[in-house]
Amino acid sequence: MPISNPRELRLAVRSGQFTGHTSGHCRGFVQGNVVILPESWADEFLRFCQLNPKPCPLIAVSDVGQYSLPSLGVELDIRSDVPCYRVFEEGRLVDEPVDITAYWRQDLVTFVLGCSFSFEEALLTDGLEVRNISEGVNVPMYRTSLPCRSSGRFGGNMVVSMRPFKAADAIRAIQVCTRFPSMHGAPIHLGDPAQIGIGQLEKPDFGHSVTVHADEMPLFWACGVTPQIALEQARPPLCITHSPGSMLVTDLLNSQLAIM
Amino acid sequence: MPISNPRELRLAVRSGQFTGHTSGHCRGFVQGNVVILPESWADEFLRFCQLNPKPCPLIAVSDVGQYSLPSLGVELDIRSDVPCYRVFEEGRLVDEPVDITAYWRQDLVTFVLGCSFSFEEALLTDGLEVRNISEGVNVPMYRTSLPCRSSGRFGGNMVVSMRPFKAADAIRAIQVCTRFPSMHGAPIHLGDPAQIGIGQLEKPDFGHSVTVHADEMPLFWACGVTPQIALEQARPPLCITHSPGSMLVTDLLNSQLAIM
Repeated sequence: MPISNPRELRLAVRSGQFTGHTSGHCRGFVQGNVVILPESWADEFLRFCQLNPKPCPLIAVSDVGQYSLPSLGVELDIRSDVPCYRVFEEGRLVDEPVDITAYWRQDLVTFVLGCSFSFEEALLTDGLEVRNISEGVNVPMYRTSLPCRSSGRFGGNMVVSMRPFKAADAIRAIQVCTRFPSMHGAPIHLGDPAQIGIGQLEKPDFGHSVTVHADEMPLFWACGVTPQIALEQARPPLCITHSPGSMLVTDLLNSQLAIM
Repeated sequence: MPISNPRELRLAVRSGQFTGHTSGHCRGFVQGNVVILPESWADEFLRFCQLNPKPCPLIAVSDVGQYSLPSLGVELDIRSDVPCYRVFEEGRLVDEPVDITAYWRQDLVTFVLGCSFSFEEALLTDGLEVRNISEGVNVPMYRTSLPCRSSGRFGGNMVVSMRPFKAADAIRAIQVCTRFPSMHGAPIHLGDPAQIGIGQLEKPDFGHSVTVHADEMPLFWACGVTPQIALEQARPPLCITHSPGSMLVTDLLNSQLAIM
């Protein structure tokens, strides 16, 4: 039974009643990727997001040491309101807790980034088929040859997600996603994968492959895995993220972040 | 020396001082395709435009017998303000006058339709290359297998114009043109020409071929030649149009017809 109210879902997460993935819950509300870093790394990461807004669309940044995010939700507590976290030390995964109160420090800064759930919902609402959803798999993602703009210790190439469409639907998908710059926005490439350094579509680097019919073309969106890889390579002493699929559910409606 | 003021240009046309193509004059202002029909054919044509807004984007329709179009220009007189006209009887071209006062009747209705000049200007302003402009030729146009929605005696397949772009520029071109639904709007197809019944890109049915580089894809826009062919096939007893390239220049700014 899906939960429809974001605050209700966050309270269920906090109390341990809700675990698992957030997809399918709180339809219409923005879900976000979470990155938590020490203050000494936060400025460089903030600049990295500003330099690379398509893979790293910032929705909110907390004050230093603050675990509330008032712009994203009433009584939201970032230490407890994500169903599952990942804790990295020097780039290594060391823990996957359901609560990070024990890890909390007065110098931590929280970043929330938009994710593709919002624009996938908009595509479906527009009557388009989203192949990874209709085939019930995680979206295929690929490392590309497109360099991000570096910021100090953060850099690397862009990772993209792929969804195939017929030409007329591809044009419509570009229009629909253009409305959502805070959720990766319009695709960054379409057509020939080799032009952005992708070898075989049927062998994604992350996620699962999906069917691409002969009369379809692949569309590629900047992907939130890009900052995750930048973080792994930068190896900050401490970094806490959401666990893939277990997102922060906010009180913002997707339509409130649409540019029109 | 280009004329920048639309009213000044129309007066120069009216007095016979200005002849020829309007491209390059009155930058920033909407230029339109003109179709003039007897009242007994006007309703069917109006409905044809409403059913097929991408090839036939209506900007204005006159009152019956009225040669002014107050919504498009101060003191505009459709009988004299287009540099060159074409007069068709039963679908046959019978005259190419510079003034149609002698043909005017109390039952004539004027239709003005948006044209691609506006969105080409928007593409150039956005820093994109428009190949037919950089190669100095008329845009290549093709008959497609895409049927228009019929209205009485008006029907036929859609004609499209083609401009090639690299993938990232193609995405941007879709965004830019989406703002201008009154000027054919976003492309209706991109990629494989065969999917819309086009045989060889290098052999357009109208206009001239342009270079398409190996790393580019063709984008196809609904084209104002579509209603011209529908008119030729419907063979009304009288039909007057602008001569290709000699458009009606209006007082409307392109930006005023942009949807945002």
